[in-house]
Amino acid sequence: MAKTTTLKEFESVFPKLVEDLLDHSKTYKLPEEFVSWFKTSLNANTIGGKCNRGMSVPDSVSLLLEAPLSEQQYFEAATLGWMTELLQAFFLVSDDIMDSSITRRGAPCWYRQPHVGMVAINDAFMLEAGIYILLKKYFRKHQSYVDLIELFHEVTFQTELGQLCDLLTAPEDKVDLDNFSLMALALHHQNIATPKNLKQAEDILIPLGEYFQIQDDYLDNFGLPEHIGKIGTDILDNKCSWLVNKALEIATPEQRKVLEENYGRKDKEKEANVKKLYDELKLEQIYKDYEEKRVEEIRQKIANVDESEGLKRTVFESFLAKIYKRSK
Amino acid sequence: MAKTTTLKEFESVFPKLVEDLLDHSKTYKLPEEFVSWFKTSLNANTIGGKCNRGMSVPDSVSLLLEAPLSEQQYFEAATLGWMTELLQAFFLVSDDIMDSSITRRGAPCWYRQPHVGMVAINDAFMLEAGIYILLKKYFRKHQSYVDLIELFHEVTFQTELGQLCDLLTAPEDKVDLDNFSLMALALHHQNIATPKNLKQAEDILIPLGEYFQIQDDYLDNFGLPEHIGKIGTDILDNKCSWLVNKALEIATPEQRKVLEENYGRKDKEKEANVKKLYDELKLEQIYKDYEEKRVEEIRQKIANVDESEGLKRTVFESFLAKIYKRSK
Repeated sequence: MAKTTTLKEFESVFPKLVEDLLDHSKTYKLPEEFVSWFKTSLNANTIGGKCNRGMSVPDSVSLLLEAPLSEQQYFEAATLGWMTELLQAFFLVSDDIMDSSITRRGAPCWYRQPHVGMVAINDAFMLEAGIYILLKKYFRKHQSYVDLIELFHEVTFQTELGQLCDLLTAPEDKVDLDNFSLMALALHHQNIATPKNLKQAEDILIPLGEYFQIQDDYLDNFGLPEHIGKIGTDILDNKCSWLVNKALEIATPEQRKVLEENYGRKDKEKEANVKKLYDELKLEQIYKDYEEKRVEEIRQKIANVDESEGLKRTVFESFLAKIYKRSK
Repeated sequence: MAKTTTLKEFESVFPKLVEDLLDHSKTYKLPEEFVSWFKTSLNANTIGGKCNRGMSVPDSVSLLLEAPLSEQQYFEAATLGWMTELLQAFFLVSDDIMDSSITRRGAPCWYRQPHVGMVAINDAFMLEAGIYILLKKYFRKHQSYVDLIELFHEVTFQTELGQLCDLLTAPEDKVDLDNFSLMALALHHQNIATPKNLKQAEDILIPLGEYFQIQDDYLDNFGLPEHIGKIGTDILDNKCSWLVNKALEIATPEQRKVLEENYGRKDKEKEANVKKLYDELKLEQIYKDYEEKRVEEIRQKIANVDESEGLKRTVFESFLAKIYKRSK
């Protein structure tokens, strides 16, 4: 039987990886004070999140194996998971500068911490570099070494393209590594990243990702602030949300006028007018119908998964279960 | 006979590489306006330098082959050269932000150009990503593909460590890819990056690099502004230059006091006092003696190079000739 990891287990792996990265820096004769700077940056920017993405790598590997992981297997899979967290950290540190953000996970953003400032840009680079140092250390002999490197390069570039669009249009606060990449890591780890398995994973996880994004847009307006941990601001921020697109699709000319005059206006009253219109248009029910339909399609695809090359339906079920009807 | 490339030839390769990178971006359905942004960034940040480093890759390959390169060979070697220029561009764009620089190659720094701002950070990332996209496109089948990727990762991390030191102590404006890495690219291209050849290259090019740095420090004070293209500011900027270290080594207690009171004081008169002391200490002659001794040692090492695995003395002679007694 597969076993699910806990944040505590997952976090327990990180100090070893930090040590590896610091040891590697020392081979370049980096003076102690800078080693200690790197250490602080690694810990401050990588630890403290929910690590859902990183943890899904050992979880997926365990589901693929249909067994709990040995210590060695857990360490390797968690290391791959931490690489995704390093990549996320690289983007978060730099995005916070680009977006002039103030806080991150309840503390001042890294670049706003004492004595950091624009050095944070170089710190972000070093977080990214950490991925490849660890890949080389632990996976150089792995038959998928090149694929793993290329996967990280590809996800990195894809995220950068997404960032470019966001930065030049409506800044978003979402930097999300997709489930497909996390799954691909698990498949590579198990040497079953065959073209067929990758294709099956993609066909399920890309629609699942779209559903997740749309759900995010839905929760921004209809979620409970005490669940989602913030008060949604998509209407005020003029976000190109699924809700406003759906509203524009079904609105009468009169309702469309309300949207045009009230959406994205940084005005609480105008925001309330949009919210009222969303209710009149029954967007909550429309979303729920969409969700049921979409989830049914995804379930159908999961049911049709061919497990002959080592893929397991349970991995997809687990990804779906984390998302379906979530309130946060 | 080997043939030396010209800037014009070298630059003529770049438009194809830009096209490759833009085509690759389009496979992610990047909207046209963002493709055009990427294009502008690639051209603005990569073209316009002297490209000495990039050009040394095809030059070295030609010296190793002892023949002019075929069109295909030239394209591949120049592409590796352009990757080093992309890496350089990645660092220059981000360093200019970290150092609050104003101009670069006579134009406003990229981040100071209209509508760019902090998006320049993401643009820097995309310049870096370009290296790996091109490596994958042109070298995936090459037997040294993994070594080439690892070489770029390693140089990148090494440069980031150097940046960290500079940023946290005395900011330097030197981001220089070392000759050893350029040579390694040429060796990999020719499939002769044997341990022995790499070791021989390292044993010569690392001391050559040190000599180059020291020469840079020397020229900052003793070079002619019309040759070096700037007025040196190492004394005003409190730089940890070879000259001041040498001065401290040989100064009398009285002279040491002059240094302590006048070095790094952002004051033209105090700078003149240091310059006067440098003359009294005959640092120019001391440097010249150092240079002769160092160059003699390097020449000796070059003479002893074992060419049995395809390495050629001429490659090292060419690197040395570009540096010895340069005035700029």
